[in-house]
Amino acid sequence: MPELRKDPILGRWVIISTERAARPKDFKIQAPAPQRGTCPFCPGNESMTPPEILAYRPPGSPPDTPGWTLRVIPNKFPALRIEGNLDRSGIGVYDRMNGVGAHEVIIETPRHDLNLSQASESTIRDVLWSYRERLVDLKKDPRLRYTLIFKNHGEAAGASLEHSHSQIIALPIIPQTVALELYGCKNFFDYHDRCIFCDILEQELEQESRIIENRPATAAFTPYASRFPFEVWIMPRKHLCGYEDATALDLEDLARTFSAVLRRLEKVLGSHPYNLIMHTAAFDDRYPQTCDYYHWHFEIMPTLTRVAGFEWGTGFFINPVLPEEAARYLREVSL
Amino acid sequence: MPELRKDPILGRWVIISTERAARPKDFKIQAPAPQRGTCPFCPGNESMTPPEILAYRPPGSPPDTPGWTLRVIPNKFPALRIEGNLDRSGIGVYDRMNGVGAHEVIIETPRHDLNLSQASESTIRDVLWSYRERLVDLKKDPRLRYTLIFKNHGEAAGASLEHSHSQIIALPIIPQTVALELYGCKNFFDYHDRCIFCDILEQELEQESRIIENRPATAAFTPYASRFPFEVWIMPRKHLCGYEDATALDLEDLARTFSAVLRRLEKVLGSHPYNLIMHTAAFDDRYPQTCDYYHWHFEIMPTLTRVAGFEWGTGFFINPVLPEEAARYLREVSL
Repeated sequence: MPELRKDPILGRWVIISTERAARPKDFKIQAPAPQRGTCPFCPGNESMTPPEILAYRPPGSPPDTPGWTLRVIPNKFPALRIEGNLDRSGIGVYDRMNGVGAHEVIIETPRHDLNLSQASESTIRDVLWSYRERLVDLKKDPRLRYTLIFKNHGEAAGASLEHSHSQIIALPIIPQTVALELYGCKNFFDYHDRCIFCDILEQELEQESRIIENRPATAAFTPYASRFPFEVWIMPRKHLCGYEDATALDLEDLARTFSAVLRRLEKVLGSHPYNLIMHTAAFDDRYPQTCDYYHWHFEIMPTLTRVAGFEWGTGFFINPVLPEEAARYLREVSL
Repeated sequence: MPELRKDPILGRWVIISTERAARPKDFKIQAPAPQRGTCPFCPGNESMTPPEILAYRPPGSPPDTPGWTLRVIPNKFPALRIEGNLDRSGIGVYDRMNGVGAHEVIIETPRHDLNLSQASESTIRDVLWSYRERLVDLKKDPRLRYTLIFKNHGEAAGASLEHSHSQIIALPIIPQTVALELYGCKNFFDYHDRCIFCDILEQELEQESRIIENRPATAAFTPYASRFPFEVWIMPRKHLCGYEDATALDLEDLARTFSAVLRRLEKVLGSHPYNLIMHTAAFDDRYPQTCDYYHWHFEIMPTLTRVAGFEWGTGFFINPVLPEEAARYLREVSL
């Protein structure tokens, strides 16, 4: 059973998950990628994964067989386990809890070599829709307080399988980065009576220098204090706290923005690894007015620089590219 | 001039430093290492670096010439610049400030291929002593509020030069990770009237399962909530808030602990990349009682796993190795 442990100084939780435990000498930075024929995410290999939770497939076609266009499965090596109680306890100054939670994989396409940047807008829309479906479902579990949807693309960004996929981890606690974000948003709202994300977006649309895409329902820009070169945020133009509040029309527009951003990044940077995360409102009733002050958004972080001692020691990032310059490159490229 | 920018939601600062600006296509994850003959850190190549700030060399030998055993120089490509005023300003919801600060390099040894894990205890002691000297000096600059000393070893850990070196970055603000640590320590002290690091150390020495080294003045252990496999913390056994308060005797003992920990890690993991950071008390008078509640320490983080979307989105870490198991491996290896 994985275990959650809390650092008593920073209040930061870690997941100690020894499922894939190895002897020290086995630690390899680079894991070999599985051959195409044995990719567990390819059609025909459905039996290599746990039974599907959700799939987009022709009406009447049986689960866990080919024919699907998108498939959601439990992670075979989960960082957290869905079974069991939270079982919280203290050990002297330390706190721990059972590693209860969900860890799922969204196989975004049956095609082994199709990257999201080359996928059609309708494929991307389906991926975005599956995020929403899983969020709505996971929200029903009273043990869970937060769900992070994320994607690691490329080995340097932490992807262990090449076949295009996203991941979902639902947690029994609000993670620190999200708590800090909620705190910052609430502070701003308490003083200004406005959502800080809405204010940021308004300023960005007025200044224009960091805008990359501007559509009826969504906009994309390089954030003013970008941590990473070519970091891009995508968010709804209207105030929406929870991703599950997005309508089919919103996601249609989002898919267009998404596709354009990924294609622009690829045109400018070439094939490159990246991490993508989605931040949405917490499930937790300890954040009662969250819908007043929170605003869901995506963050795309190309893996072009190395995170090293300085970043670990300070939480500071050194970014060698001006966000305005990155935005200009991304805007000026022709699609 | 580099620029400091603040994320208005998280209150997190970034350094936008375009000194080494490149066109997007130039971004390479792996920079080629310079050849030994042209290593700017090797004796004989002193003219390839800016003039030295400090050096341990025979009495009477002129600066910036061979003969030194340790050399501190300004970074040739600094993330921050020592000249100028802070020049703070706001742009709508955003805050910025000039990138004023110090960025120095400590060349730990004249030998190109000597790693700190193979260095003698006296070499390590000199490195630790140079940290102290630089801290005492940088503390005099009233514009600076915090100094981070860190080391990136190996390319995967972000080192761009092979020749063994540490780095120093002095900042005009307290970085977020340090502020959170100070806040956690102060909270604990306000309630318990004790230093949390002292309590942690007492519990670790009593439990023994995570202890690796235990000497008269210093101890080393794998922290209960280790973020990374084989993460190790080293700290003084007596309560000391600022690293510059360490005596020559303290650093003698620390050098022994340090050397043993690095050798143990290398025996267990083989040659491996790692990041090392040192956290000490802030210079800032906004933290008046910091010496009551803060406690300097080193954190060593082997680079064995990849940081990916989940970590960026949550601040959570997934660690596949039990800290007790890591400590056992490190303890049981024979030196």
